[in-house]
Parts: sequence; C-alpha cells; structure tokens
Amino acid sequence: MDKKSKLKIIPLGGLDQIGMNMTVFEYEDSIIIVDCGLSFPDDEMLGIDLVVPDITYLQANRDKIKGMVITHGHEDHIGAIPYVLKELNFPIYATKLTMGIIDGKLKEHDDIPKNIKKKIVTYGQSINLGVFRIEFIRTNHSIADAAALAIFTPVGIVVHTGDYKIDYTPLFGDPIDLLRFGELGKKGVLALLGDSTNALRPGYTQTEKMVSKTFDTIFAEHVNRRLIIATFASNVDRVQQIINTAYRYGRKVVVEGRSMVNIIATASELGYITVPENTLITTETMKNYPDEKIVLITTGSQGESMAALSRMAASIHKKVTIKPGDVVIFSSNPIPGNEKAVTKVMNELAMKGAEVIFEQTHVSGHACQEEIKLIYSLVKPKFAIPVHGEFRHRRAQGDLAISMGVAKENVFMLNCGDVISLDENSAAVTNKVPSGGVFVDGLGIGDVGNIVLRDRQNLAENGIIIVVLTLEKGSSQILAGPDIVTRGFVYVRESENLLDEAVSVVRDALESELDPESEADWGKIKMIVKDSLSDYLWKKMRRNPVILPIIMEV
Amino acid sequence: MDKKSKLKIIPLGGLDQIGMNMTVFEYEDSIIIVDCGLSFPDDEMLGIDLVVPDITYLQANRDKIKGMVITHGHEDHIGAIPYVLKELNFPIYATKLTMGIIDGKLKEHDDIPKNIKKKIVTYGQSINLGVFRIEFIRTNHSIADAAALAIFTPVGIVVHTGDYKIDYTPLFGDPIDLLRFGELGKKGVLALLGDSTNALRPGYTQTEKMVSKTFDTIFAEHVNRRLIIATFASNVDRVQQIINTAYRYGRKVVVEGRSMVNIIATASELGYITVPENTLITTETMKNYPDEKIVLITTGSQGESMAALSRMAASIHKKVTIKPGDVVIFSSNPIPGNEKAVTKVMNELAMKGAEVIFEQTHVSGHACQEEIKLIYSLVKPKFAIPVHGEFRHRRAQGDLAISMGVAKENVFMLNCGDVISLDENSAAVTNKVPSGGVFVDGLGIGDVGNIVLRDRQNLAENGIIIVVLTLEKGSSQILAGPDIVTRGFVYVRESENLLDEAVSVVRDALESELDPESEADWGKIKMIVKDSLSDYLWKKMRRNPVILPIIMEV
Repeated sequence: MDKKSKLKIIPLGGLDQIGMNMTVFEYEDSIIIVDCGLSFPDDEMLGIDLVVPDITYLQANRDKIKGMVITHGHEDHIGAIPYVLKELNFPIYATKLTMGIIDGKLKEHDDIPKNIKKKIVTYGQSINLGVFRIEFIRTNHSIADAAALAIFTPVGIVVHTGDYKIDYTPLFGDPIDLLRFGELGKKGVLALLGDSTNALRPGYTQTEKMVSKTFDTIFAEHVNRRLIIATFASNVDRVQQIINTAYRYGRKVVVEGRSMVNIIATASELGYITVPENTLITTETMKNYPDEKIVLITTGSQGESMAALSRMAASIHKKVTIKPGDVVIFSSNPIPGNEKAVTKVMNELAMKGAEVIFEQTHVSGHACQEEIKLIYSLVKPKFAIPVHGEFRHRRAQGDLAISMGVAKENVFMLNCGDVISLDENSAAVTNKVPSGGVFVDGLGIGDVGNIVLRDRQNLAENGIIIVVLTLEKGSSQILAGPDIVTRGFVYVRESENLLDEAVSVVRDALESELDPESEADWGKIKMIVKDSLSDYLWKKMRRNPVILPIIMEV
Repeated sequence: MDKKSKLKIIPLGGLDQIGMNMTVFEYEDSIIIVDCGLSFPDDEMLGIDLVVPDITYLQANRDKIKGMVITHGHEDHIGAIPYVLKELNFPIYATKLTMGIIDGKLKEHDDIPKNIKKKIVTYGQSINLGVFRIEFIRTNHSIADAAALAIFTPVGIVVHTGDYKIDYTPLFGDPIDLLRFGELGKKGVLALLGDSTNALRPGYTQTEKMVSKTFDTIFAEHVNRRLIIATFASNVDRVQQIINTAYRYGRKVVVEGRSMVNIIATASELGYITVPENTLITTETMKNYPDEKIVLITTGSQGESMAALSRMAASIHKKVTIKPGDVVIFSSNPIPGNEKAVTKVMNELAMKGAEVIFEQTHVSGHACQEEIKLIYSLVKPKFAIPVHGEFRHRRAQGDLAISMGVAKENVFMLNCGDVISLDENSAAVTNKVPSGGVFVDGLGIGDVGNIVLRDRQNLAENGIIIVVLTLEKGSSQILAGPDIVTRGFVYVRESENLLDEAVSVVRDALESELDPESEADWGKIKMIVKDSLSDYLWKKMRRNPVILPIIMEV
C-alpha cells in the first residue's frame, strides 16, 4: 500500500496579479476549483482587454474536476467563468445573488454550452464534490451573499475566507457567522486561506451603514442641486443605501451604465435590493423633473474611459450633460493605478462647474488587522496561506498569523502556480504548474503573448521604420527601393530631409557591401539595412525605432 | 496719444499640465519670464522622455525679453532652462542655491552658449528688467532659498508666491517673510498668482522638522538593521535631516543616485547642507562597516524605473544588494500617477525580505488652506490668478480667495496660453498664444507631435500589419506579393493559417477589383488592401490593427 495521499492546493491566480482569483484543491482523483475571476490589464499590457487565469493545468486534469465553488459575485471572482466554460464543462455552486450575477454574465456569451449544471447553495449547506465536502459560511463583504468555505478533505479542514469583512450591522442580511468559524476552530482546522487586502491597515473596517450618515449630510447640504453618485456596479449594498437616502429626500433615482443597470435588475429581481415604488425612473424621463428631485447613480467611479461618468465628464454622453451646480459624489476609492484617470475625470467635471465630493462616502469591503486577528483567534489554523493581495499585503497577514500563534515555518507565501502539498502534520511547496495571466484581445484568448506585447511596447515607445526593397530573382540587384515608411517615429512632413538622408545611408551601405551579381542573402541584406540605419538614427537623434526590412523578389 | 498700455500675464505652462511652470509678464517692450520647468510624460505620451513648454510666443518676441527670474531649484521650475537656452539668450536671476543647481544642470548640456549672464539675488534685493522691478521675498518650501516675487509694474504690484509653505521652524534659514507680504498688501497689490497644490487640503502643512521626530523613532526601533531611505534628490532639507539623525545614531551615510549625488554636492559646497566630518562614505567602502552603522540615502522614491532604489529592488543595481533585515523607508508620497510603480518596488523589496516603511516620514512643501488664507489676508490682492495645480486645486484656491474678500469676478481660472490683460482697475482674458507641452524624445525637441503619438498609441494597442506588393511599372500587374508582415499583432508561429488566409483575402480582392492592363492607381490599390483586410480581421478576430500597404514598382 502506498503511503497516504496528500492534499494539493494550487493558486492559479489572485496573488500578485490582483483580480483573477482562482484556487485549485486536489486530492487523488478529485479536483475542485474555488472562484474564477478576471483581472483588468496593467498599463504595460498594451491593447489587452482582459486577463484570465491560465488553465493549462485544469485542461490536463479535466477528468478529475468535480465542480467549481464561488465565494461571491465580484468580477475578480467570477469574471473568467465564461472563458473557462468555453474549454471545460463542470457544475457551478454559489449562493443565490452570486449565481444570479453569473447567469447574467453567461447570457452575454453565446458560445457557451447550454448544459452547464448550476446549483444554488444556502449558508450552512454542504455539497459533496468527489472526496471533498464544502460548506458555505455566511460572511460580510461589499456585496450580499458572500460566503467563506469550509472544505472538508481527507487530511483535514481547510477554511477559505473569500473576500470578507466583519460587519455587525450589515445593510442586507446578518453579520458574519463567527460562531461557525469558532466551531470549526474547535474541531481543528488544518489551513486557513485568508483575504489579505487590508492586512496592512490597523484597526477595524467600518460598517457599510456609516456611509449612509454621510449621504444624509450631503443630501441635506445640497437640497437644491442635482446629485450624481458614482460607485462600483457590483456594490449592491451601496446602491441600496443611495436609493434609501434618495427616497427619504423625495428624489427620483436614475441609473446609468450598462453593468450597473444589469446588476440592479438581477439584485432587485432576487430580492437583494428593495426599490420603493415610483422611485426608479429612466434617463429619458429625467427631464420631466427638476434637478433637486434627481439622484443619478452611475458607473465610472474608477475613471474608466468608457464608463458613463467619464463620458459625461468629457461631454460625449448621449443622454446626460453636466451642468454648473451639479454635485458629483465619488462613492469609492481609486484602485491603485487608477488615481490619474479618476483625477482627470474630476478635473473635467469641475471645469464644467460641478462640485466634486471625493473620499467621503466609502468604506472598504475587506477586513483590517483586528478583524483578521479575530478570525485567526477563532479558526486557529495549523497552516496559514495568505491569499488575495500583493506580496506586501500577504506578508502582513503572514505576520499577523505568527502574532496569533501560527508557527513561523507554517506560514506560506506562495506564488501563482505553486503546488502546496499538505497532510495532517506537514505542508510544503512540492511543485509548480503553469499559471498566470492569459490575455484576451478581441475574440482571441491567448493569441497575444509576451512576445507580441514586447513588440507593442517597442512600437509604442520608439515607433517603426519599414525599409522595403525589391530584388531581381536570383541576384542581389536592387530593382526598386530602398523605400522608407515610418509610423510613430517622427512627423514626416517636418523630417523629410532626415528620411531622404536615411534612404541614402541604407543605399550606400547596400551598394558597398553587396555584390549585385551574387545570389541574394536575405539575412545579410536585412542585417545591413538594420545596422546602417540604426547607427545613423542613433547618431543623429539618439533614438532606437523598430527597424523592419522587407525584401521582395521579382 | 494711445490709451495707456496694459500688463499682460501669460502662463505658458504649469496649469493643468503639472510641472512645466513658466509665466510671461509683458508690458509694452518689456518681457520677463518667471520660471522655466519641465514635466515628465504621462502614460499616454508613449516613448517621450520629457515635456518642455512651447516657446513659440517667446521666439516671436525675443527682442522684448529682458530676463528670466527663477523662484526655486526644483525640476518643474528650472528643468526646461537648458532647452530654452538653445533657442533664446537672456540673463537669469535666482537665489544662490537655485543658481547652483541651475549651473549643475547647464553643465550637462554642451550645446548651450557660454555667454549666458547669471546673477545671484538675495532676499529683499530688487532687480530692474525693462519696465519691471522684481523683488525676491523669502519663503519656505521643501528646498532652501525659495522665493516669492513682488513684480512692480506700471499698472501695479503683482505678487507671485512661487511654491511655498509657511514653516515657522524651517530646517535651514528663517521663516517666510510674512511682514513683507503684509507691507506689499498695505501698499496695494493688483494681482496674486498663488501656489494651488494643496488648496483642497484643510488646515496647515506641518513643519519639515516634524519628520525628524519620526526618523528618530525609526532609527531607535531598528538599531541593528541597515537603513535605506528614499526621497527626492531635490529635497535638500530632508537629506540634511537624515544626515543629522544618522550622525546622532553613529551611522555612516552613503548616497546613491546620480541626481542626488549632484545636488548634495552643490548644496554642501554652497553651505546649504552641513555634513559632519567622516559621516559621508562611498558606496564602495560600505562593505567595511556593519549594517547597523549604515544609512543609505537614495533616489527612486517615486518608483522611477531607472532610479537607484528601483534597480536595487529588481536586483540590477551594481553596488547595492537588498538583504533580509534591511529597512527601506519611503520619505515621500507618491505623485499622482506613480502609485502603481511605487507599489511594485515595495513588493519587490518585501519579497527580498526587507521591511518597508511608507507614508510616515513626509510632510508637504506646499501651503494648505489656512496658510493660503493667511497669505490672502496679508496681500489683499484685487485680482486672484491661481497657478500651480490641476483645475480642481486652482478652483479651490479661487474659492478661498472669494472667501477672503476677492470679488468673484476678479478670480481668473486661466488655461495655458491665455493672455490676461490688466490695468489698475480691470482684468480680462484678451487673447490666446501657442502654449502647452513640446515633447522631447532623444535629441529631438518637438519632432514628435500629436500625430506621431496617435500612431504610437494605435500601434501599441493594436499592432501593425504591413502589406507589400510589387507592381509592373505602368500597369496594375502584380509581380510580387502581396506579402504580409506583422508586429505587435499576434504571435506569428501560432497564427500562420490566419495570415495565409489574410494574404488570400487581399489577393482575391485585388484580382477581382483591378484590371492588370490599366495603369496603377496606388490610392485605389491601398484602399482595396485596407478595406478587404480590415473587414476580414474584424470578422475573424474583432481586432483593428494598423494596416499599412506599401507598393513598389519595377
């Protein structure tokens, strides 16, 4: 008999590449997947639309996959589901609102098999997938129906917190089920995978309900003004609070931005948002009401260039025009990297005479240090595997874990693709599988890779010079060219002399180094073109454009 | 006799484009220029090294220029001087440290005339330039020797604050000369051009000396560790405080980063930094001292990819290797837009085992709301022209001005290039001159314009497809091609079929639409190539690469 098998846990995303959360649990012939998020491209991912996790490992082990379990309905946890379902077929388990949002998302893709099994799970309920039993535990987050997972495995219980905060007065539903975390801790928890987002922040995250007091103040101070509030489409609780405040102040609510309209429709259909009668009106009927009777809720709080608010700010929104006196409230904090885009939108709004209110009506959806410690004090895991954060955030959670009694050597700072193997007593990184981001550009998934991105970067920074020449077949006799065409290099009309001179430089180099009678050596010709031209341009301009020689034969 | 002339004030930069501060004052035949800064490129300015102000207006009026007056030695106020001196020759006036830094900068450019007149001015001193008399007034900022300017003009006194804060206990020299601001106010000030950077922040900016207490705490808590402190090269006072604390704790100081080494050399040569004997050591001798005896001061606090700290974090610095136990202190806040780069460096440092201390040892060099109000209460200008800030910051200063008694219609929110004309009683924007950023790329100033940038953006997001074909001279007979070459589009080896098919599509389109016997219409041929190929790629991939047809004739 072989020695007993080990549990493997493999984060395929969600560590340094924020978003794209996806973790694989594997034991012998059973695999389950927790979450399936996408991420948005960094600045250097030129032209990329989305980034989804690399599922090479799952494709190679497709027969083992028993199902996918989702913790909550945010893009960074569900956004890649449509892309993965194009390759793999498995059942999906989630709470009601989460599944509603997934359903909405799948409807937008018409190339997904129709026979995907989807099952709604309630808090406290367990599902069996292969050797695993998975229990959904109630948590709080910036969206309702968020769940932590207790994963019962042959080597012990693993708790995955999902994204969570501890909110004793959540807007919707009940506080996080701390008792259950404690009961699991009492049974003995092998490993805890915990949300690290706010692990660098001391103290506690405030309750979502705090925001409502600030909204009250702002509504009271601006009774005669139109209010425009930007927030995340997926922040269902925030939208509810805005609707509540609007109702109290006798204002009608207009919703702008496709993703927000969709999520509000799903949430109210499923009973997660309550909209008082006659409160929601359409953008078209907004003109029938005076400004002081309107609250417009919109997407674009991150300065996303195509979102509704950014289009209003740039005066290219079809239905809404910003006017002097409008009050625009950013009910969100900028995600790192978006600060400049947000600033641009705020300036544009201010130039149109709007008052901009910023950083006053937001609380985080993630646990701070004291909350993280509370969870450790209840769960008392043997091993700590911080997830959902950049390295510094995960390191900070690791340090908190140690301060709460986890042995230093039992804290694992993983990289994407690391395979950590656990049994009742030990854990170690034993392997590495393909992981990381796959770029989605247009319809193509993965056809733009790092080589293409490097080319784009190069083109972007330096532009391109194309040198074309036509040779006589079988000889090195130049029949036409060299001609030079540039893009992204210099403005041609002002630099004609430069380019004429460049043509001469290339022609001279070719004439002096080639024997027109001998057979053409394309490699050599291309080298001569590149060398002579790049020397010339560096000396003349200190510039390094991409040089692309193209040879034709007639 | 004509009616009396007006004073024109023209900001050529420094409004929405942060950095690049430059303001022109013109009265009849006299022009003076205040400051001459550069700015660093935004993300969308692909491949650009620097941005300098457009001096078209100055070139057209070169005979009127009496001189340039500099408020302080930061890049956004002096960085474009070398570029402007390549085109124009005029005397420069500045305080001692400011001039020292300018001198250092000019030495790096060997194509600047040697006969530039430079004159050091002291606080309280006035200089006469044409019809203008300019008095330098002592202020506080994050660099010593900062000055505000009182510009005495035929229509009244204009005060330009430069960058300032009110620091009653500055590290070097004396507090800002509030009395002089008050005396000018008593005489009557026509217009105030004031720093808007922190106009959205309530309260007061803390004194630079506060930082020293935090350094004390950090040094005391990490007595056994190597300390690495990143800050702006130009923050001379901060460097002084680090040196002071290092000396108190018996540590040697190492300085890394060319710009920092240069500025420290200038500042200590001129007496603006005092370095106790045997405190500064070279990077090479660092190895002779234990870690707990070292403080390394470095550039790179903004995550700049080529700066010393970023190279240490990425393990590509030649002399310094980050070790577990190192403590890295960011003594600066990220400038908007740099957050992600800073975060990347912090994660890399943490991965190497360093402890990162962030946002604890910095105070701003710019006045907050209460300080701005203090200046208005002393200067009591008739007209307020907020400068040095994005629109929202300038609007906020405008609102402060109104709250301090400036008439609403006397507050001017200018754009770059606006000409505001003033006399004793009135002010109005009367004209607009060329302004804004000129891109520096390699040796070229201005040869990369918006068309080239748009090309680069396009290339960066979509890549390029080049279609080459050779025609028989005088006919439309295709002798070679169409051949397709791509860059930044898709990884070719995986997409050969796609490109083969694309070639067929183009060939078919050309064959069906061209008569080989008729003379070649290049415009038509290019159109056929572009249309057929872009249709095909959009249908097949939902992508829009740049398509560049090149035709040769033999």
